[in-house]
Amino acid sequence: MKKIGILTSGGDAPGMNAAIRAVVRSGISAGLEVYGVFNGYEGLVNDNIRKLDRGDVSDIIIQGGTILGSARLEEFKLVEVREKAVANLAKHGIEGLVVIGGDGSYRGALALTEMGINCIGIPGTIDNDIDSTDYTIGFDTALNTVIENVDKLRDTSSSHHRCSVVEVMGNRCGDLAIYAGITTGAEVIVTKETGYDEAEVLERLNYFEQVKGKRHAILIISEKITDVHLLAQKISQHTGFSGRATILGHIQRGGSPTARDRILATQFGDKAVQALMSGEGGRCVGIVSEKVMTIDITEALRTPKKSRKPLFELHDRLV
Amino acid sequence: MKKIGILTSGGDAPGMNAAIRAVVRSGISAGLEVYGVFNGYEGLVNDNIRKLDRGDVSDIIIQGGTILGSARLEEFKLVEVREKAVANLAKHGIEGLVVIGGDGSYRGALALTEMGINCIGIPGTIDNDIDSTDYTIGFDTALNTVIENVDKLRDTSSSHHRCSVVEVMGNRCGDLAIYAGITTGAEVIVTKETGYDEAEVLERLNYFEQVKGKRHAILIISEKITDVHLLAQKISQHTGFSGRATILGHIQRGGSPTARDRILATQFGDKAVQALMSGEGGRCVGIVSEKVMTIDITEALRTPKKSRKPLFELHDRLV
Amino acid sequence: MKKIGILTSGGDAPGMNAAIRAVVRSGISAGLEVYGVFNGYEGLVNDNIRKLDRGDVSDIIIQGGTILGSARLEEFKLVEVREKAVANLAKHGIEGLVVIGGDGSYRGALALTEMGINCIGIPGTIDNDIDSTDYTIGFDTALNTVIENVDKLRDTSSSHHRCSVVEVMGNRCGDLAIYAGITTGAEVIVTKETGYDEAEVLERLNYFEQVKGKRHAILIISEKITDVHLLAQKISQHTGFSGRATILGHIQRGGSPTARDRILATQFGDKAVQALMSGEGGRCVGIVSEKVMTIDITEALRTPKKSRKPLFELHDRLV
Amino acid sequence: MKKIGILTSGGDAPGMNAAIRAVVRSGISAGLEVYGVFNGYEGLVNDNIRKLDRGDVSDIIIQGGTILGSARLEEFKLVEVREKAVANLAKHGIEGLVVIGGDGSYRGALALTEMGINCIGIPGTIDNDIDSTDYTIGFDTALNTVIENVDKLRDTSSSHHRCSVVEVMGNRCGDLAIYAGITTGAEVIVTKETGYDEAEVLERLNYFEQVKGKRHAILIISEKITDVHLLAQKISQHTGFSGRATILGHIQRGGSPTARDRILATQFGDKAVQALMSGEGGRCVGIVSEKVMTIDITEALRTPKKSRKPLFELHDRLV
Repeated sequence: MKKIGILTSGGDAPGMNAAIRAVVRSGISAGLEVYGVFNGYEGLVNDNIRKLDRGDVSDIIIQGGTILGSARLEEFKLVEVREKAVANLAKHGIEGLVVIGGDGSYRGALALTEMGINCIGIPGTIDNDIDSTDYTIGFDTALNTVIENVDKLRDTSSSHHRCSVVEVMGNRCGDLAIYAGITTGAEVIVTKETGYDEAEVLERLNYFEQVKGKRHAILIISEKITDVHLLAQKISQHTGFSGRATILGHIQRGGSPTARDRILATQFGDKAVQALMSGEGGRCVGIVSEKVMTIDITEALRTPKKSRKPLFELHDRLV
Repeated sequence: MKKIGILTSGGDAPGMNAAIRAVVRSGISAGLEVYGVFNGYEGLVNDNIRKLDRGDVSDIIIQGGTILGSARLEEFKLVEVREKAVANLAKHGIEGLVVIGGDGSYRGALALTEMGINCIGIPGTIDNDIDSTDYTIGFDTALNTVIENVDKLRDTSSSHHRCSVVEVMGNRCGDLAIYAGITTGAEVIVTKETGYDEAEVLERLNYFEQVKGKRHAILIISEKITDVHLLAQKISQHTGFSGRATILGHIQRGGSPTARDRILATQFGDKAVQALMSGEGGRCVGIVSEKVMTIDITEALRTPKKSRKPLFELHDRLV
Repeated sequence: MKKIGILTSGGDAPGMNAAIRAVVRSGISAGLEVYGVFNGYEGLVNDNIRKLDRGDVSDIIIQGGTILGSARLEEFKLVEVREKAVANLAKHGIEGLVVIGGDGSYRGALALTEMGINCIGIPGTIDNDIDSTDYTIGFDTALNTVIENVDKLRDTSSSHHRCSVVEVMGNRCGDLAIYAGITTGAEVIVTKETGYDEAEVLERLNYFEQVKGKRHAILIISEKITDVHLLAQKISQHTGFSGRATILGHIQRGGSPTARDRILATQFGDKAVQALMSGEGGRCVGIVSEKVMTIDITEALRTPKKSRKPLFELHDRLV
Repeated sequence: MKKIGILTSGGDAPGMNAAIRAVVRSGISAGLEVYGVFNGYEGLVNDNIRKLDRGDVSDIIIQGGTILGSARLEEFKLVEVREKAVANLAKHGIEGLVVIGGDGSYRGALALTEMGINCIGIPGTIDNDIDSTDYTIGFDTALNTVIENVDKLRDTSSSHHRCSVVEVMGNRCGDLAIYAGITTGAEVIVTKETGYDEAEVLERLNYFEQVKGKRHAILIISEKITDVHLLAQKISQHTGFSGRATILGHIQRGGSPTARDRILATQFGDKAVQALMSGEGGRCVGIVSEKVMTIDITEALRTPKKSRKPLFELHDRLV
């Protein structure tokens, strides 16, 4: 193997640039040429591909986003579209590819591998919704962004006898909500895992206000569970708190990556290069019990959902 | 004058605690006793009043929110309600009162002064919507919170060929939007002052994308102008950008105050004490052309709206 | 067991308050009374002990430092001093004790256990120098503080063709330096593990400046290895860079804890309470391969030093 | 005038990039070509000059440092050196020049103006030591960096009955120290203006510890006044506090500029372009009583030192 490519796909996540840097530099250190593919799978299909040098990735370890750009390309499911990608890679002599993204990106990587281009996936998504790895790149940064903002809401909540309802990202996976809930000392956490029962939530808030005498409360809820502005209205009507909703939204995807995301991304990028050089394909990198490893993508996609029961129980003991 | 009181009223703002600290300590240094009134005018009426010592305000200069709590009390317009307040103040022997808040709070301060309690207002609101002062306490912190978050959105906008629509606070006054627009290099700024013409906004974005070749765009808009999620949809439909809306909401009211808000709050609090000691009442503190001064509240409420035309023109030259 | 105590000892670390909160609330949830001991072992000896309620630890999860205060007490090695401590604990009916600190604090905890007070240690130090746990409380926050500051130095280094020499904490353990070096993209890392050869460092910097054409460089070095201001002078004299040294110092010990330190501290505090309730003593909490567990303190103190060779090799490939 | 140049000189300051962006874009909007001069006056002499487009300054408003690089060039005092600069400018057809820097840079700008190249100075230095303007670019960011770090030291000071001695920049001007002292609630402030009397400082700390019963103290001191590590030792020996010194150093020069520095830099850059277009030369931009204006450099260099007596008195009332 002489030449490898790298692309970022799906929603961006802080730390993707650190992973790109690691792939480029680790590849060059190993004697490879490394090519950047722009705008995800779209760039493969449109031949938006350019060789990257060490200097091209200088100082990007501190930047959020991805210098390669990212996009979703539904049509990549079609074999004729992927054939264009394979032809473009062949043209450049690129034999292996690192794909940074989520589950969807992994499927593309698997399909390409089956067509002869060895691909290695790197889990890059703030949602931490890839079960084959303990942590994904971007999760730690997003979580810290959430808690910095909730800490700000706490100031103003305490001043106004308020319940702040905070919607965080994480559609398929409640990790951002549950971790944020514990680390901000939130009174209530609602995720896909907990289910949502409005009456119970209101009752619980009343309990905190009337029985425990709390001056303010924080409720963290995953996106796409309920309309948080309506929930805030109900809180004003049915509890002693005045409810106010905040949807943190895309600020959770940005920002300079934390130390942990930088180191994780660096280790993942380096491992992906090593895997390609060992002839691996159709596999993805992950960290399991503090060990960076690769596993088959097919197996990764079958990994059962992480249980967060111990974390919810921990929260219950401490709230 | 032997005893003075202090309260915070209306929406809270970072730096209110720094002002409280300044009032307490400056008062004590001048030989006064200083009483904290809790939950705004409500605390006056309910006699929720407690003497504060130097130690009670230790270390609060770095905290957002207000340790005194804040609330709105519509009924304070009624003379019989205010009479209760005056009676409570008389009971404690409190002869002067510092009121930190916005225009609404100033009206209460004026009414109380007319009933014999000298009051001095301090402008505390993130909106910078008090025209008798160049800056209000909290504006600088809120503005920095906005730009930190827009800087994060920029990361993810660049990665996705996106237009980020960011709704900021400032219902009656577009200062947060215009200052944030200039300091983040936003492409488009929409405030009460500019008016809102959807077609023009879309056209302008198209111009930036097609003519100027921008990979991403930022649009800052004041609250209560339009539904920003709908606007983002329109952007996706009618421009080359994919639109995404973020409503920053109450995080703008929180956070540790910036240096500037701490110093301003400290100067204002100290000035308010001096004003009370000189026998002033019905006046409010402000900073005009870098000079901390007091003026009559009646005059302050009549001050014409600050023109931001030079700032909009500056933005136009630089975008 | 009905009553337990908690103290913080040695240098403080961000997240200690989160651990205190977890011990107090988890203890109360389990039906215990929890007593705070002030100023470390000194408070045990001087009977500076007070019962803590849920409300006493409200909102402290976001605060750096330790509300209990911390101190070193050399005399605690003496059995007659410890006997006073045991007598004070007996007076209050406190049967178990949680001790948050480093190796030195663990020794005190072991000695007390041998005198009949079951003690559980929690690793709280920014240095990550306790080998029986993968991570200590405070390390992640300190590391993020380091990289935020190095990112600032990078701005000014690039503007001036400069080599920034940054001294970080970690006397016995180079983890802060090696992790900071990788996550900031530092050119050179010097720790106890690497050893220090001035001539080699200067040569390496010359290589980066002349061969690789770098406009600026960053050198991270652990404390107590060399005089960094002299090293900076040598860099100015013997390389193409202008050298400038910064000693980050005690700012590394402060600040609001990161998400990771908050969650770790929360899990550790909760686990310590469970351990005491199961009758454990002379043990300490740790996280090993993502699993929170307890082990004997005697065993913990014997754990061999973590090897960071893979991290140094990773750095070499990427620099 | 068709072509203008821009350079940054002396120590860098956050916001210089925002000023560069404003000069470039405001110039282009006015129909000018704008040339970047690299590495300060050195670039003028060595003809390190390149035309800048709008896109070259995209997104730099958020970056610390200066994309043009900065350097000091003692030889620029020599007329034969300056003649090379003038010749290079003539070669490119550059008729006017914007110089961002401090007093030293202004002198170069004045000398060049006298040789036929109209120059406009912009005050860019974190020290706020240019008396002809109320604020310099970079001061607000540096001040916020100082207070964020002092806030971190406060955490650890409170935990250990400590006096934190913090050395800040500002050799000729104590503004960073005095503003930081007020905004962090420091117990003691030492600057060139206050003078330094070690015995008095120790006595004052003893007073705070013994009479006022403070658990911790903060002392802010300007650079180059005394050896702060020795001072910390004396504090440990002669007061009830344990002393610990921190030299903040060059981190004060870095970081993303605050809102205030961004807006100031933007206004200054725009004003400088307008001044050049009006045929002004040998003048510098400043903000006085909230008004952005230009004045003669000769007059600016004669402006008497700002008195900070009111700020010191304010500090005394509040400490």
